[in-house]
Amino acid sequence: MNRLDTSDPDFAQQFHALHDWDANLDPQIEVRVREIVTTVRDRGDAALREYTERFDGVTTASAAELEIPRSAWDAALHGLEPTQRVALEEAAQRIRSYHEHQRSVGWTFTEADGTMLGQRILPLARVGIYVPGGKAAYPSSVLMNAIPAHVAGVKEIIMTVPTPQGQVNPWVLAAAAIAGVDRVFCIGGAQAVAALAYGTESVPAVDKIVGPGNIYVATAKRMVFGRVGIDMIAGPSEILVISDGSAPAEWLAWDLLSQAEHDEIAQSIFISWDDAHIESVVNAVDAALDVLDRAPIARKSWADRGAVIRVRDRAEACAIADRIAPEHLELAVQNPEDWLADIHNAGAIFMGIHSCEALGDYVAGPNHVLPTGGSARFSSPLGVYDFVKRSSLIHSSPAGAARLGQIAERLALGEGLTAHARSAACRIPEAGS
Amino acid sequence: MNRLDTSDPDFAQQFHALHDWDANLDPQIEVRVREIVTTVRDRGDAALREYTERFDGVTTASAAELEIPRSAWDAALHGLEPTQRVALEEAAQRIRSYHEHQRSVGWTFTEADGTMLGQRILPLARVGIYVPGGKAAYPSSVLMNAIPAHVAGVKEIIMTVPTPQGQVNPWVLAAAAIAGVDRVFCIGGAQAVAALAYGTESVPAVDKIVGPGNIYVATAKRMVFGRVGIDMIAGPSEILVISDGSAPAEWLAWDLLSQAEHDEIAQSIFISWDDAHIESVVNAVDAALDVLDRAPIARKSWADRGAVIRVRDRAEACAIADRIAPEHLELAVQNPEDWLADIHNAGAIFMGIHSCEALGDYVAGPNHVLPTGGSARFSSPLGVYDFVKRSSLIHSSPAGAARLGQIAERLALGEGLTAHARSAACRIPEAGS
Repeated sequence: MNRLDTSDPDFAQQFHALHDWDANLDPQIEVRVREIVTTVRDRGDAALREYTERFDGVTTASAAELEIPRSAWDAALHGLEPTQRVALEEAAQRIRSYHEHQRSVGWTFTEADGTMLGQRILPLARVGIYVPGGKAAYPSSVLMNAIPAHVAGVKEIIMTVPTPQGQVNPWVLAAAAIAGVDRVFCIGGAQAVAALAYGTESVPAVDKIVGPGNIYVATAKRMVFGRVGIDMIAGPSEILVISDGSAPAEWLAWDLLSQAEHDEIAQSIFISWDDAHIESVVNAVDAALDVLDRAPIARKSWADRGAVIRVRDRAEACAIADRIAPEHLELAVQNPEDWLADIHNAGAIFMGIHSCEALGDYVAGPNHVLPTGGSARFSSPLGVYDFVKRSSLIHSSPAGAARLGQIAERLALGEGLTAHARSAACRIPEAGS
Repeated sequence: MNRLDTSDPDFAQQFHALHDWDANLDPQIEVRVREIVTTVRDRGDAALREYTERFDGVTTASAAELEIPRSAWDAALHGLEPTQRVALEEAAQRIRSYHEHQRSVGWTFTEADGTMLGQRILPLARVGIYVPGGKAAYPSSVLMNAIPAHVAGVKEIIMTVPTPQGQVNPWVLAAAAIAGVDRVFCIGGAQAVAALAYGTESVPAVDKIVGPGNIYVATAKRMVFGRVGIDMIAGPSEILVISDGSAPAEWLAWDLLSQAEHDEIAQSIFISWDDAHIESVVNAVDAALDVLDRAPIARKSWADRGAVIRVRDRAEACAIADRIAPEHLELAVQNPEDWLADIHNAGAIFMGIHSCEALGDYVAGPNHVLPTGGSARFSSPLGVYDFVKRSSLIHSSPAGAARLGQIAERLALGEGLTAHARSAACRIPEAGS
């Protein structure tokens, strides 16, 4: 793990190296993804079936087999052990309740001359949810992506999940049944993204594609952006824990490793000003690594990308948090509410020693799809607002057209746009008429 | 102009050809833009000055000359003819008032066991506004991009505008002074986007880049997306006018041409079920083209991309509007409010015969940066919401951690994530303790 200290003369340089992770834009991947996307666009189901056979080892007798029927999800749901099913349903219920607070409504106002202005908000008609397949298929990811869309009122939610070598995760199907998904297709990779963006004979074209995926999926999403909406391009997951020593070192060690166990390039950073506490946490991480199932992954993540930053004080801790703009920020401190004014950039803020990230990943209610790689500076957790669109409403009265038309005409002439000027001017009654 | 009729047997095919405009992804442009972006990222001001000399013919004695000082904008503002200045200021005031309705506030709620959940909303810290330069520099574009950012509370608004051969549009500088811009740099193209995304010695790195631009600018924005936020990639502008014959044909002709005069690839579409009215509008467009300043552009746009679609009835008109998902929709009809329930996809809806697009372009108040190319299906006008970010807040009480921790533990074990499970479990008091 990397050890940094803000009082070191080369701290700035070390911090930059730790923090400046740029997404690798491999031109070769882009070329391959472009070929897949255009082939699916042009050849539809036939291409989709070929790629699914080639990449996932799944042979289909007809395009209809690309869809997983609802009876299979229902069977998966009923097949869950009862306590598992209750856990999934309770999580779904809490996620739904939280996201209902994100609903927004349109508005209008009318000016003195009768001109009405406003903004209308409507749900998207059809959305695609990409769910990674195979062993790393996460039912929580299905809930977190589908429920906000469902709460927004999206009419049709299409889920795609690859089933490599026919491997289907029953939890994922059960989650689809709970979350309000309408149809599920067993496709993945760039070909699934292309099918959702352009539509094939079997897969309907959607208006927006959300959900995590590997570099091929991310590259394909970037490529079809504009044709459809997409969510943020997700980078490796990160957690930043700031501790004043209030929490047991062991708790914090598990928190740091809950990020590290995701992925070798996941990043866990621990910040404190308390030297003894720092050593306790470092030791607790080492001890925890010895008993962790996914220790090989977590060990590499912690060794290569993990960091412990010793700061002078709370002010430095906040400043570093703002520069990192972490996906997850744990304020494992007394009175965390007093810290909020000094923290501006974070996807989710876990306040106090009882608020571990794992609660937020599954069940607290807020979304676990969060801005990574510093993008919390400018973007937000996935939410209901990502599944609606707004339209401006302009209903000018005759008097409004006369008054505003004069301004519009003047500005249009200033820009050299005669037709704009005439369009406004023809609605101004002539003087005396 | 293209003539379509929904009762023609090949209408579907003709409509597809008219509507399916895919952004051309020229790989050569991508290669050139990538070189510019990486060079500016790696070499900063030196590269920026070289490109500005090469592409804009502007030689700078030092990097400081890349900035246009506030004194120059103030001079531009004071140099405006008084009626021009009043028009610009009144437009700015109306745009500001409308956008103030888009402000949103965070919220929290506390559950029975003391667990607090919520969502915080903060403005972005620093935003870049790209403004095209030269002859097509539009002051209205400065207002429409900068004012929502200013209303959102963005701390620093950086504007870039190329000044080809030293050509500066004083209206654009005056608009910057009015709209709340903080700094202006005379740079453009992919190099300006790169400078805003990565920062140079002179140009500060921003959190998000918005504003229209040519294919180089759009490609660069797509490339830096993720490093910074971007607004929608804008395509050619479009208007769809649906008319029941209530408005004089001449008015509608100017409305159609106010789109066509923008660009040879802009698209104006007229829909009606009234044959005599259709012929009047077609004739009025031809007559108007004869007296239009930008006739060569408008004529080509109308000839190649323009269309008149005869429909059977209002229901067909609405269905086509929804498929086109136009940037601008004019409902030049009696009782336009009765139509809204049947229209789902449009960037801005201009209701009634007095609400021409030109009012919305300049002064009505709603934003003129609107989703193009059918993206109104999933995206929204530029607004205050584009200049804020949200953070989830999770403050679990000890009782909440105990209760939710059990669910999180179960779901984490179901996903095979042991550290997540342990992180949740360690906060559950042991039975009897």
